[in-house]
Amino acid sequence: MSLVTVDEANAEFYAAFEAVDLDRMSAVWADGPYAESVSCVHPGWPLLRGRGEVLRSWALIMANTPFIQFVLTDVRTEMCGEHAVVTCSENILTADDDTDLGFSAGGSVVTTNMFVRADGQWRLWLHHGSPVLNRIGDEE
Amino acid sequence: MSLVTVDEANAEFYAAFEAVDLDRMSAVWADGPYAESVSCVHPGWPLLRGRGEVLRSWALIMANTPFIQFVLTDVRTEMCGEHAVVTCSENILTADDDTDLGFSAGGSVVTTNMFVRADGQWRLWLHHGSPVLNRIGDEE
Repeated sequence: MSLVTVDEANAEFYAAFEAVDLDRMSAVWADGPYAESVSCVHPGWPLLRGRGEVLRSWALIMANTPFIQFVLTDVRTEMCGEHAVVTCSENILTADDDTDLGFSAGGSVVTTNMFVRADGQWRLWLHHGSPVLNRIGDEE
Repeated sequence: MSLVTVDEANAEFYAAFEAVDLDRMSAVWADGPYAESVSCVHPGWPLLRGRGEVLRSWALIMANTPFIQFVLTDVRTEMCGEHAVVTCSENILTADDDTDLGFSAGGSVVTTNMFVRADGQWRLWLHHGSPVLNRIGDEE
């Protein structure tokens, strides 16, 4: 894996999740001086803070995710010096334990990913994913 | 209103919403070179990009919000040079048009607010709010 560019780091985050590989996921997230301020919001979840709590949530999620695949759309990266913000839509194909790999969900999540550059590598500092519900804004 | 500090700018964002004042809300959001990259995710909505689209969404929301009040908890501000990130939980008391001010919702939203400093003022550049559902992460 490479975290040399923001795009690579963002791709590695999703690749680690698709591979259901907690070690790779751990390597994506910021550490050292940033460990304490790492933040993560899974869709529908409250805010989690701190590298320990965030990685425990990934262990829990991965333990309940036999299969997940992402197609990212509307990806946009904004550079802010040693920080970068990626916004994108996650189009998700997944299965859960109950369905014996009958696919249970094809959801859509909108995401803000903030990265910080440390030691020449871009590491994930904040992940905020939220469910896109059925066009509640269009009702007028 | 003052946007001299990040905390003031964040407070003004919620004050503008509580006042249901679109002019104040417009003044909070970044403009000029940042207008095109402004981003906003309302809870359950897809990502909106660009100052025009974002402010139209606020006009729509405000037209359907006779009353809303926020109590912010777990507020945390991270400074990154000319950018700043505020994460917080919005505890919301609201009413909608159908209820004749019988309060219909006391919801919880977790939020990432990114600000950028321009001309000595902190302006909102990205707002990402997501609904906190009922502890879906705890089921194991």
